[in-house]
Amino acid sequence: MIFRQLFERESSTYTYLIGCEQTRQAVLIDTVKSAVDLYLQLLEELNLKLVYVLETHTHADHITGAGALRDATGACTLLGEEANSPCVSKAMHHGEIINVGQIVIEALHTPGHTDDSYSFILEDKSQYYAFTGDTLLIRGTGRTDFQNGSAADQYVSLFDHLLKLPDNTWVYPGHDYKGWMVSTIAEEKAHNPRLQVKDVAEYIALMSNLKLPNPKMMDIAVPANRACGKV
Amino acid sequence: MIFRQLFERESSTYTYLIGCEQTRQAVLIDTVKSAVDLYLQLLEELNLKLVYVLETHTHADHITGAGALRDATGACTLLGEEANSPCVSKAMHHGEIINVGQIVIEALHTPGHTDDSYSFILEDKSQYYAFTGDTLLIRGTGRTDFQNGSAADQYVSLFDHLLKLPDNTWVYPGHDYKGWMVSTIAEEKAHNPRLQVKDVAEYIALMSNLKLPNPKMMDIAVPANRACGKV
Repeated sequence: MIFRQLFERESSTYTYLIGCEQTRQAVLIDTVKSAVDLYLQLLEELNLKLVYVLETHTHADHITGAGALRDATGACTLLGEEANSPCVSKAMHHGEIINVGQIVIEALHTPGHTDDSYSFILEDKSQYYAFTGDTLLIRGTGRTDFQNGSAADQYVSLFDHLLKLPDNTWVYPGHDYKGWMVSTIAEEKAHNPRLQVKDVAEYIALMSNLKLPNPKMMDIAVPANRACGKV
Repeated sequence: MIFRQLFERESSTYTYLIGCEQTRQAVLIDTVKSAVDLYLQLLEELNLKLVYVLETHTHADHITGAGALRDATGACTLLGEEANSPCVSKAMHHGEIINVGQIVIEALHTPGHTDDSYSFILEDKSQYYAFTGDTLLIRGTGRTDFQNGSAADQYVSLFDHLLKLPDNTWVYPGHDYKGWMVSTIAEEKAHNPRLQVKDVAEYIALMSNLKLPNPKMMDIAVPANRACGKV
């Protein structure tokens, strides 16, 4: 497997490039429109053909590069069916399997941050990778106070799905604001302050007391991303 | 081997944490003073004991966390002997071997960006890792126009040393400004525009025509780093 984590500084977004060494097919997870030329450069230099562009959810903090990448490469764009996006190539559902050459990616519906939040899981050489979007962050979890977010749903997504992955699973989040790039399920179980709650009621109370300001780009980014980044 | 790449946004610096799974000893390469508390948190959470803090060179763009980390942990700090730093625990020389539990790191003197530039090489499970500081960047090389820099020396460091590492060696640089995190020797040989020169004269001409502004923090950072970050 060819694997690269990429960083977009303005929104502190991580984008993931995953490629199949044998077939040279590749997928990008959570792209940013301003970095599309850099993705195209890297794909060309690594001799990879982009076949899928996946979104973990409808982002409120940056504009997706999905539409521009589809235009440039013919790749298929996927976003959760809950987003009701009119322009996405394919509306993704829970349990959807995405084949990228010999790499098998499973989409898990992990709502809570938004109702259209998904995580992507794959296995390579007995090592699991979880691309958790804004559901599970490194020592944090995504806010649940807009875009049909729900702390109760997120509790289920975290405790009944993501934290049941093997302890050594790599956790690759959608963002990090302190410069950390990867974690593991074991690390998050032990050290993520949001995951030390005793039950769903305590988690709902914790999340409802965060009182965060709205993301700066929300009013622009959400409608733009429903339109595949075409603004 | 436990391995984490960390990012400091202000100076776009990559810091590397490498730990031995068996002995729990760890080393940090190129720390940033403002992130020291985050390093200490991560070391504690991963149950690692910091034994070395390595510098690839005397940085001109950020202040090292070496002194503060030595105070907090008792770790030994290393910087190239060419720096003539009065406060470093140990002045490092070409070929120096640094043992971190069962991990063996070799320091290569790779001058050019500065006269005290080093790269750190290690092997884990038949995979080489090169921490190249500002000598070899992803699709670039470090400027050579101050701190006793020399394009001629850098040409030798690149072509006679770093590019002779196995093609699949991971290249982990000291910085990246476009959000890329890792490369390989093969990739840099093929796609780094600075490495497409035919000889040392062409490289010197290329580097002397860059006409870059001085780093913003240079006047503060260089003396501070000669003093192990104690300002």
